Amino acid sequence: MVANNEVGTIQNLNAIARTAKEKNIIFHCDAVQAIGNIALDVKTIPIDAMSISSHKIYGPKGIGALFVRKGVVIDNLIVGGKQENGNRAGTVNVAGAVGFGKAVEIATRDVTINAHKIKNIRDYFTQKVTEKIEGVTINGHLNQRTCGIVNLCFECVDNESLLLMLDMEGIACSIGSACTAGTNIQSYVLKAMGKTPEQIKSSIRFSFGKNISKDDIDYVVEKLVVIVKKLREISPLRRSAKESK
Amino acid sequence: MVANNEVGTIQNLNAIARTAKEKNIIFHCDAVQAIGNIALDVKTIPIDAMSISSHKIYGPKGIGALFVRKGVVIDNLIVGGKQENGNRAGTVNVAGAVGFGKAVEIATRDVTINAHKIKNIRDYFTQKVTEKIEGVTINGHLNQRTCGIVNLCFECVDNESLLLMLDMEGIACSIGSACTAGTNIQSYVLKAMGKTPEQIKSSIRFSFGKNISKDDIDYVVEKLVVIVKKLREISPLRRSAKESK
Repeated sequence: MVANNEVGTIQNLNAIARTAKEKNIIFHCDAVQAIGNIALDVKTIPIDAMSISSHKIYGPKGIGALFVRKGVVIDNLIVGGKQENGNRAGTVNVAGAVGFGKAVEIATRDVTINAHKIKNIRDYFTQKVTEKIEGVTINGHLNQRTCGIVNLCFECVDNESLLLMLDMEGIACSIGSACTAGTNIQSYVLKAMGKTPEQIKSSIRFSFGKNISKDDIDYVVEKLVVIVKKLREISPLRRSAKESK
Repeated sequence: MVANNEVGTIQNLNAIARTAKEKNIIFHCDAVQAIGNIALDVKTIPIDAMSISSHKIYGPKGIGALFVRKGVVIDNLIVGGKQENGNRAGTVNVAGAVGFGKAVEIATRDVTINAHKIKNIRDYFTQKVTEKIEGVTINGHLNQRTCGIVNLCFECVDNESLLLMLDMEGIACSIGSACTAGTNIQSYVLKAMGKTPEQIKSSIRFSFGKNISKDDIDYVVEKLVVIVKKLREISPLRRSAKESK
């Protein structure tokens, strides 16, 4: 992954790609979370393959692209017809491809402006939240991080309740990734980062797009203050933490 | 296949499904070519699974549906995320699904009217062609056949040249199926039907949609008469046929 989808941490793609190349390892990178937020050029990074997705850059849902460098041989994903050189059989989603192409064009053109704007909004959010709510920590690397994501741990707050209550105020966040939605599995990303089960159960991801304003952030922070307070009041974790003091 | 995509022949789906059921064989049927032309109801036909495709019924390209009867377990097509119960990982093509749903609604509502209209147009075409051009035969069953397709064999005419010359007049036909486009393989359907390599090399498929008019057909027949004459004049097959007489 260029940028992790749950915490936003950016990997040193060039170093990994160079090491992989030295060891003759085929290197595919998932740039779904990075595209539109980080300038990427397959001409200069020695990767073998890269995936990108349309809905992350305001394009139509349900279409993506796999870049495969000339000479790299891949298995077919869907066998059957000869469409897409046999790599993915089936009638092509033409409207999706056209919309995605346009979205890539716009995202590439505006990447610097958008990244700057989104980073400012995210930092404004993080600053306000940590100012107004105690016991909040940021998961993941503080600087080496894509602009579009912040993953926060709200001490003694159940993240599922937080998610639901924010949703009721019209605020959409997420726990884990969309790929594991509907399952009961705790974030393996946070687990691998050494977070405790309690910390993971109190962590939630906020994502920021190019159309989010400071007013939107003020609204979210206002609601967060109230909801976090409420959830901590009823939290068994809070009680046991207090009792042990 | 409910209806074959190359020649249009309709299988006795009920009989096959019943036999499969008796023998405890899971029965999937490809209804891509049938939907919109033949009334189908998974409630009454004892199939286990059925595939349909959006672009065959004037819906968006690049989306289809797989009906799987409750209790039938299938392998996952694309593994990864948990979307579509894990059967097909990846962000769903929402716009495509909505468009497809509407297309199914319209196609189901209008199936009788459309099938009648399209059959009339196809029969008008077949009648005109066989009237005005000699040495034309229909491939496949004459009656047990979907309304939308006719596969014709033009004796001593090279089908690739015919395809190209029709294309130059704005008439789109096909040889074989779209799934084998770009490959050099002869139609396995016609081969399985016992057609000779010469017959296969002279066969071409015409498809009819609900918006085709009699004027369109008159235009196609007019062009066909000229092109077939021209191609037969330069055909080495024609010459050897004449010489052997």
